[in-house]
Amino acid sequence: MYKTPNAALPRLSVEEFKNAEKTPFVIVLDNVRSLNNIGSVFRTADAFLLRGICLCGITAKPPHRDIEKTALGATESVYWEYFDHTADAILKLRSLEYKIFAIEQTSNSIHLQNFISDPHEKIAFIFGHEVLGVSDDVLLMCDGWIEIPQFGTKHSLNVAVSAGVVIWDQYSKRLKILAS
Amino acid sequence: MYKTPNAALPRLSVEEFKNAEKTPFVIVLDNVRSLNNIGSVFRTADAFLLRGICLCGITAKPPHRDIEKTALGATESVYWEYFDHTADAILKLRSLEYKIFAIEQTSNSIHLQNFISDPHEKIAFIFGHEVLGVSDDVLLMCDGWIEIPQFGTKHSLNVAVSAGVVIWDQYSKRLKILAS
Repeated sequence: MYKTPNAALPRLSVEEFKNAEKTPFVIVLDNVRSLNNIGSVFRTADAFLLRGICLCGITAKPPHRDIEKTALGATESVYWEYFDHTADAILKLRSLEYKIFAIEQTSNSIHLQNFISDPHEKIAFIFGHEVLGVSDDVLLMCDGWIEIPQFGTKHSLNVAVSAGVVIWDQYSKRLKILAS
Repeated sequence: MYKTPNAALPRLSVEEFKNAEKTPFVIVLDNVRSLNNIGSVFRTADAFLLRGICLCGITAKPPHRDIEKTALGATESVYWEYFDHTADAILKLRSLEYKIFAIEQTSNSIHLQNFISDPHEKIAFIFGHEVLGVSDDVLLMCDGWIEIPQFGTKHSLNVAVSAGVVIWDQYSKRLKILAS
Protein backbone atom coordinates (compact mmCIF):
# COMPACT_ATOMS: atom_id res chain seq x y z
CA MET A 1 0.00 0.00 0.00
CA TYR A 2 1.32 3.43 -0.87
CA LYS A 3 -0.25 6.87 -1.00
CA THR A 4 -1.18 7.86 -4.54
CA PRO A 5 1.25 10.62 -5.57
CA ASN A 6 -0.53 13.90 -6.33
CA ALA A 7 0.75 13.84 -9.88
CA ALA A 8 -0.86 10.42 -10.44
CA LEU A 9 -4.38 11.52 -9.44
CA PRO A 10 -6.62 11.75 -12.48
CA ARG A 11 -7.23 15.50 -12.69
CA LEU A 12 -9.00 17.28 -15.50
CA SER A 13 -7.63 20.51 -16.90
CA VAL A 14 -10.01 23.49 -16.72
CA GLU A 15 -10.65 23.06 -20.46
CA GLU A 16 -11.38 19.34 -20.07
CA PHE A 17 -13.68 20.13 -17.13
CA LYS A 18 -15.67 22.60 -19.21
CA ASN A 19 -16.11 20.04 -21.98
CA ALA A 20 -16.83 17.06 -19.71
CA GLU A 21 -20.29 15.58 -19.35
CA LYS A 22 -21.72 17.06 -16.16
CA THR A 23 -23.76 15.77 -13.27
CA PRO A 24 -27.11 17.52 -13.80
CA PHE A 25 -27.11 19.17 -10.37
CA VAL A 26 -26.92 22.87 -9.59
CA ILE A 27 -26.21 24.31 -6.15
CA VAL A 28 -28.08 27.50 -5.29
CA LEU A 29 -26.65 29.57 -2.43
CA ASP A 30 -29.46 31.73 -1.00
CA ASN A 31 -27.75 34.53 0.91
CA VAL A 32 -24.78 32.57 2.25
CA ARG A 33 -22.55 34.84 4.28
CA SER A 34 -19.25 33.01 4.78
CA LEU A 35 -16.59 33.30 2.10
CA ASN A 36 -15.00 30.11 3.43
CA ASN A 37 -18.23 28.24 2.86
CA ILE A 38 -18.66 29.60 -0.66
CA GLY A 39 -15.13 28.51 -1.57
CA SER A 40 -15.67 25.02 -0.14
CA VAL A 41 -18.88 24.66 -2.15
CA PHE A 42 -16.95 25.46 -5.32
CA ARG A 43 -14.56 22.61 -4.52
CA THR A 44 -17.45 20.21 -3.95
CA ALA A 45 -19.03 21.26 -7.25
CA ASP A 46 -15.69 20.71 -8.98
CA ALA A 47 -15.21 17.26 -7.40
CA PHE A 48 -18.56 15.92 -8.60
CA LEU A 49 -18.65 17.66 -11.98
CA LEU A 50 -21.71 19.77 -11.22
CA ARG A 51 -23.42 21.89 -13.87
CA GLY A 52 -22.96 25.04 -11.83
CA ILE A 53 -23.57 27.23 -8.83
CA CYS A 54 -26.04 30.13 -8.49
CA LEU A 55 -24.75 32.77 -6.07
CA CYS A 56 -27.71 34.81 -4.83
CA GLY A 57 -28.34 37.94 -2.77
CA ILE A 58 -25.58 38.65 -0.24
CA THR A 59 -23.60 35.60 -1.39
CA ALA A 60 -20.23 36.96 -2.55
CA LYS A 61 -18.92 36.15 -6.01
CA PRO A 62 -15.48 35.52 -7.49
CA PRO A 63 -12.95 36.91 -7.90
CA HIS A 64 -12.51 37.31 -4.13
CA ARG A 65 -9.37 36.52 -2.18
CA ASP A 66 -11.25 34.87 0.69
CA ILE A 67 -13.34 32.65 -1.58
CA GLU A 68 -10.15 31.62 -3.37
CA LYS A 69 -8.53 30.59 -0.06
CA THR A 70 -10.90 27.63 0.19
CA ALA A 71 -11.88 27.25 -3.49
CA LEU A 72 -8.22 26.69 -4.47
CA GLY A 73 -8.89 27.35 -8.13
CA ALA A 74 -12.30 25.66 -8.46
CA THR A 75 -13.80 29.04 -9.35
CA GLU A 76 -11.98 28.67 -12.68
CA SER A 77 -13.53 25.32 -13.56
CA VAL A 78 -17.07 25.48 -12.15
CA TYR A 79 -19.69 27.52 -14.03
CA TRP A 80 -21.37 30.11 -11.81
CA GLU A 81 -23.88 32.91 -12.18
CA TYR A 82 -24.90 35.67 -9.80
CA PHE A 83 -28.52 36.71 -9.13
CA ASP A 84 -29.65 39.65 -7.01
CA HIS A 85 -32.70 37.64 -6.00
CA THR A 86 -32.78 33.88 -5.42
CA ALA A 87 -36.26 33.84 -6.98
CA ASP A 88 -34.75 34.85 -10.34
CA ALA A 89 -32.31 31.94 -10.18
CA ILE A 90 -35.21 29.59 -9.51
CA LEU A 91 -37.25 30.95 -12.43
CA LYS A 92 -34.29 30.49 -14.75
CA LEU A 93 -33.58 26.96 -13.48
CA ARG A 94 -37.25 26.04 -13.83
CA SER A 95 -37.24 27.26 -17.44
CA LEU A 96 -34.30 24.89 -17.97
CA GLU A 97 -36.41 22.03 -16.53
CA TYR A 98 -34.68 21.72 -13.18
CA LYS A 99 -36.64 20.41 -10.21
CA ILE A 100 -36.08 22.71 -7.22
CA PHE A 101 -35.38 21.36 -3.73
CA ALA A 102 -34.42 23.35 -0.64
CA ILE A 103 -32.36 21.81 2.12
CA GLU A 104 -34.43 22.88 5.08
CA GLN A 105 -36.37 21.50 8.01
CA THR A 106 -40.02 22.10 7.18
CA SER A 107 -43.36 20.50 8.05
CA ASN A 108 -43.18 18.61 4.73
CA SER A 109 -39.50 17.74 4.42
CA ILE A 110 -38.34 14.34 3.25
CA HIS A 111 -35.31 12.90 5.03
CA LEU A 112 -32.25 12.82 2.82
CA GLN A 113 -31.80 9.05 3.12
CA ASN A 114 -35.25 8.59 1.56
CA PHE A 115 -34.75 11.03 -1.31
CA ILE A 116 -34.05 9.20 -4.57
CA SER A 117 -34.32 10.72 -8.03
CA ASP A 118 -34.10 9.45 -11.57
CA PRO A 119 -30.40 9.48 -12.60
CA HIS A 120 -31.07 11.82 -15.50
CA GLU A 121 -33.31 14.29 -13.70
CA LYS A 122 -31.97 17.84 -13.37
CA ILE A 123 -32.07 19.04 -9.79
CA ALA A 124 -31.22 22.34 -8.14
CA PHE A 125 -30.42 22.12 -4.42
CA ILE A 126 -30.87 25.34 -2.45
CA PHE A 127 -28.80 26.02 0.68
CA GLY A 128 -29.61 28.99 2.89
CA HIS A 129 -28.07 31.54 5.19
CA GLU A 130 -25.95 30.17 8.07
CA VAL A 131 -28.37 31.39 10.75
CA LEU A 132 -31.66 32.13 9.02
CA GLY A 133 -31.75 29.14 6.66
CA VAL A 134 -33.52 29.28 3.30
CA SER A 135 -35.79 32.35 2.95
CA ASP A 136 -39.53 31.77 3.36
CA ASP A 137 -40.41 33.15 -0.11
CA VAL A 138 -37.84 30.82 -1.67
CA LEU A 139 -39.22 27.82 0.21
CA LEU A 140 -42.65 28.49 -1.30
CA MET A 141 -41.21 28.26 -4.84
CA CYS A 142 -39.73 24.77 -4.33
CA ASP A 143 -40.91 21.42 -5.62
CA GLY A 144 -39.90 19.89 -2.29
CA TRP A 145 -37.78 20.17 0.85
CA ILE A 146 -35.04 17.86 2.05
CA GLU A 147 -33.89 17.51 5.65
CA ILE A 148 -30.57 16.07 6.76
CA PRO A 149 -31.67 14.28 9.95
CA GLN A 150 -29.64 15.38 12.97
CA PHE A 151 -29.69 14.12 16.50
CA GLY A 152 -27.42 16.25 18.66
CA THR A 153 -27.57 19.48 20.58
CA LYS A 154 -27.25 21.86 17.60
CA HIS A 155 -29.25 20.72 14.60
CA SER A 156 -27.29 22.94 12.25
CA LEU A 157 -24.54 21.40 10.19
CA ASN A 158 -22.16 23.87 8.58
CA VAL A 159 -23.60 24.93 5.20
CA ALA A 160 -20.58 23.76 3.16
CA VAL A 161 -20.72 20.41 4.99
CA SER A 162 -24.46 20.16 4.26
CA ALA A 163 -23.81 20.79 0.57
CA GLY A 164 -21.12 18.09 0.52
CA VAL A 165 -23.40 15.62 2.30
CA VAL A 166 -26.36 16.21 -0.03
CA ILE A 167 -24.34 16.18 -3.25
CA TRP A 168 -22.46 13.01 -2.27
CA ASP A 169 -25.67 11.31 -1.14
CA GLN A 170 -27.39 12.06 -4.42
CA TYR A 171 -24.33 11.44 -6.58
CA SER A 172 -23.60 8.07 -4.98
CA LYS A 173 -27.24 6.97 -5.27
CA ARG A 174 -27.13 7.70 -9.00
CA LEU A 175 -23.84 5.79 -9.32
CA LYS A 176 -25.54 2.82 -7.70
CA ILE A 177 -28.65 3.00 -9.92
CA LEU A 178 -26.56 3.35 -13.08
CA ALA A 179 -24.37 0.39 -12.06
CA SER A 180 -27.31 -1.93 -11.35
CA MET B 1 -45.68 23.84 4.32
CA TYR B 2 -43.90 25.97 6.89
CA LYS B 3 -40.33 26.15 8.14
CA THR B 4 -39.87 24.28 11.41
CA PRO B 5 -39.32 26.95 14.09
CA ASN B 6 -35.92 26.63 15.75
CA ALA B 7 -37.56 26.03 19.13
CA ALA B 8 -39.47 23.05 17.71
CA LEU B 9 -36.37 21.20 16.47
CA PRO B 10 -35.66 18.18 18.66
CA ARG B 11 -32.43 19.24 20.34
CA LEU B 12 -30.68 17.36 23.11
CA SER B 13 -29.26 19.21 26.08
CA VAL B 14 -25.53 18.69 26.65
CA GLU B 15 -26.42 16.37 29.54
CA GLU B 16 -28.84 14.35 27.39
CA PHE B 17 -26.19 14.17 24.65
CA LYS B 18 -23.63 12.77 27.05
CA ASN B 19 -26.08 10.10 28.22
CA ALA B 20 -27.46 9.25 24.77
CA GLU B 21 -26.58 6.03 22.97
CA LYS B 22 -23.83 6.94 20.53
CA THR B 23 -23.00 6.05 16.95
CA PRO B 24 -19.84 3.93 17.37
CA PHE B 25 -17.72 6.15 15.14
CA VAL B 26 -14.72 8.23 16.15
CA ILE B 27 -13.17 10.93 13.97
CA VAL B 28 -9.37 11.21 14.18
CA LEU B 29 -7.85 14.47 12.95
CA ASP B 30 -4.23 13.83 11.99
CA ASN B 31 -2.51 17.23 11.99
CA VAL B 32 -5.42 19.31 10.70
CA ARG B 33 -4.40 22.94 10.48
CA SER B 34 -7.58 24.96 10.03
CA LEU B 35 -9.50 25.99 13.12
CA ASN B 36 -12.61 26.47 10.97
CA ASN B 37 -12.39 22.87 9.84
CA ILE B 38 -11.93 21.57 13.38
CA GLY B 39 -15.01 23.48 14.53
CA SER B 40 -17.10 22.18 11.65
CA VAL B 41 -16.05 18.62 12.43
CA PHE B 42 -17.28 19.10 16.00
CA ARG B 43 -20.70 20.09 14.64
CA THR B 44 -20.81 17.03 12.39
CA ALA B 45 -19.88 14.79 15.33
CA ASP B 46 -22.63 16.42 17.38
CA ALA B 47 -25.24 16.01 14.62
CA PHE B 48 -24.69 12.27 14.26
CA LEU B 49 -24.08 11.47 17.91
CA LEU B 50 -20.51 10.29 17.45
CA ARG B 51 -18.51 8.71 20.26
CA GLY B 52 -15.80 11.31 19.99
CA ILE B 53 -13.00 13.09 18.22
CA CYS B 54 -9.24 12.54 18.60
CA LEU B 55 -7.30 15.74 17.99
CA CYS B 56 -3.71 14.84 17.09
CA GLY B 57 -0.41 16.61 16.52
CA ILE B 58 -0.77 20.20 15.31
CA THR B 59 -4.58 19.95 15.46
CA ALA B 60 -5.69 22.67 17.88
CA LYS B 61 -7.91 21.84 20.83
CA PRO B 62 -10.74 23.62 22.67
CA PRO B 63 -11.15 26.02 24.23
CA HIS B 64 -10.18 28.21 21.27
CA ARG B 65 -12.08 31.21 19.99
CA ASP B 66 -11.63 30.28 16.33
CA ILE B 67 -12.73 26.68 16.81
CA GLU B 68 -15.79 27.96 18.68
CA LYS B 69 -16.73 30.25 15.75
CA THR B 70 -17.67 27.22 13.67
CA ALA B 71 -18.31 24.66 16.45
CA LEU B 72 -21.05 26.87 17.93
CA GLY B 73 -21.05 25.02 21.22
CA ALA B 74 -20.52 21.46 19.93
CA THR B 75 -17.21 21.34 21.82
CA GLU B 76 -19.34 21.15 24.98
CA SER B 77 -21.33 18.10 23.89
CA VAL B 78 -18.85 16.00 21.90
CA TYR B 79 -16.22 13.98 23.77
CA TRP B 80 -12.69 14.75 22.60
CA GLU B 81 -9.17 13.81 23.53
CA TYR B 82 -5.83 15.24 22.44
CA PHE B 83 -2.81 13.14 21.45
CA ASP B 84 0.67 14.45 20.62
CA HIS B 85 1.04 11.64 18.14
CA THR B 86 -1.72 10.20 15.96
CA ALA B 87 -0.15 6.76 16.45
CA ASP B 88 -1.03 6.91 20.16
CA ALA B 89 -4.67 7.65 19.33
CA ILE B 90 -4.71 4.63 17.01
CA LEU B 91 -3.19 2.35 19.64
CA LYS B 92 -5.79 3.45 22.17
CA LEU B 93 -8.66 3.04 19.69
CA ARG B 94 -7.40 -0.39 18.69
CA SER B 95 -7.33 -1.45 22.34
CA LEU B 96 -10.99 -0.38 22.47
CA GLU B 97 -11.68 -2.64 19.47
CA TYR B 98 -12.10 0.06 16.85
CA LYS B 99 -11.29 -0.74 13.23
CA ILE B 100 -9.08 2.00 11.80
CA PHE B 101 -9.70 3.50 8.35
CA ALA B 102 -7.93 6.46 6.80
CA ILE B 103 -9.65 8.65 4.23
CA GLU B 104 -6.92 8.77 1.63
CA GLN B 105 -6.18 7.94 -1.98
CA THR B 106 -3.84 4.95 -1.87
CA SER B 107 -3.00 2.04 -4.11
CA ASN B 108 -5.40 -0.09 -2.03
CA SER B 109 -8.25 2.30 -1.27
CA ILE B 110 -11.87 1.21 -1.47
CA HIS B 111 -14.28 3.76 -2.93
CA LEU B 112 -16.61 5.18 -0.32
CA GLN B 113 -19.78 4.04 -2.12
CA ASN B 114 -18.56 0.42 -1.81
CA PHE B 115 -17.61 0.61 1.87
CA ILE B 116 -20.24 -1.06 4.05
CA SER B 117 -19.73 -2.13 7.64
CA ASP B 118 -21.70 -4.06 10.20
CA PRO B 119 -24.03 -1.59 12.00
CA HIS B 120 -22.52 -2.40 15.37
CA GLU B 121 -18.86 -2.30 14.36
CA LYS B 122 -16.75 0.43 15.96
CA ILE B 123 -14.88 2.45 13.37
CA ALA B 124 -12.36 5.26 13.61
CA PHE B 125 -12.08 7.43 10.49
CA ILE B 126 -8.82 9.32 10.08
CA PHE B 127 -8.68 12.63 8.18
CA GLY B 128 -5.36 14.25 7.41
CA HIS B 129 -3.65 17.57 6.89
CA GLU B 130 -5.24 19.90 4.32
CA VAL B 131 -2.27 19.71 1.95
CA LEU B 132 -0.24 16.66 2.98
CA GLY B 133 -3.12 14.26 3.67
CA VAL B 134 -2.81 11.46 6.23
CA SER B 135 0.80 10.85 7.32
CA ASP B 136 2.57 7.84 5.81
CA ASP B 137 3.31 6.23 9.19
CA VAL B 138 -0.36 6.55 10.14
CA LEU B 139 -1.49 4.98 6.86
CA LEU B 140 0.63 1.93 7.65
CA MET B 141 -1.23 1.40 10.93
CA CYS B 142 -4.69 1.29 9.32
CA ASP B 143 -7.00 -1.65 8.67
CA GLY B 144 -7.96 -0.05 5.38
CA TRP B 145 -8.18 3.12 3.29
CA ILE B 146 -11.25 4.81 1.90
CA GLU B 147 -11.31 7.14 -1.08
CA ILE B 148 -14.05 9.62 -1.89
CA PRO B 149 -14.07 9.39 -5.69
CA GLN B 150 -13.63 12.80 -7.31
CA PHE B 151 -13.74 13.76 -10.95
CA GLY B 152 -12.82 17.42 -11.31
CA THR B 153 -9.72 19.53 -11.58
CA LYS B 154 -8.74 19.50 -7.91
CA HIS B 155 -9.21 16.10 -6.30
CA SER B 156 -9.16 17.57 -2.82
CA LEU B 157 -12.44 18.18 -1.03
CA ASN B 158 -12.23 20.41 2.02
CA VAL B 159 -11.40 18.24 5.07
CA ALA B 160 -14.53 19.21 7.03
CA VAL B 161 -16.64 18.48 3.97
CA SER B 162 -14.88 15.11 3.57
CA ALA B 163 -15.66 14.25 7.19
CA GLY B 164 -19.32 15.19 6.70
CA VAL B 165 -19.54 13.12 3.53
CA VAL B 166 -17.97 10.02 5.08
CA ILE B 167 -19.92 10.19 8.33
CA TRP B 168 -23.26 10.73 6.56
CA ASP B 169 -22.48 7.97 4.04
CA GLN B 170 -21.71 5.50 6.80
CA TYR B 171 -24.45 6.68 9.14
CA SER B 172 -27.14 6.50 6.45
CA LYS B 173 -26.02 3.05 5.33
CA ARG B 174 -26.41 1.81 8.91
CA LEU B 175 -29.86 3.41 9.15
CA LYS B 176 -30.83 1.52 6.02
CA ILE B 177 -29.47 -1.83 7.24
CA LEU B 178 -31.14 -1.43 10.65
CA ALA B 179 -34.48 -0.52 9.01
CA SER B 180 -34.46 -3.53 6.67
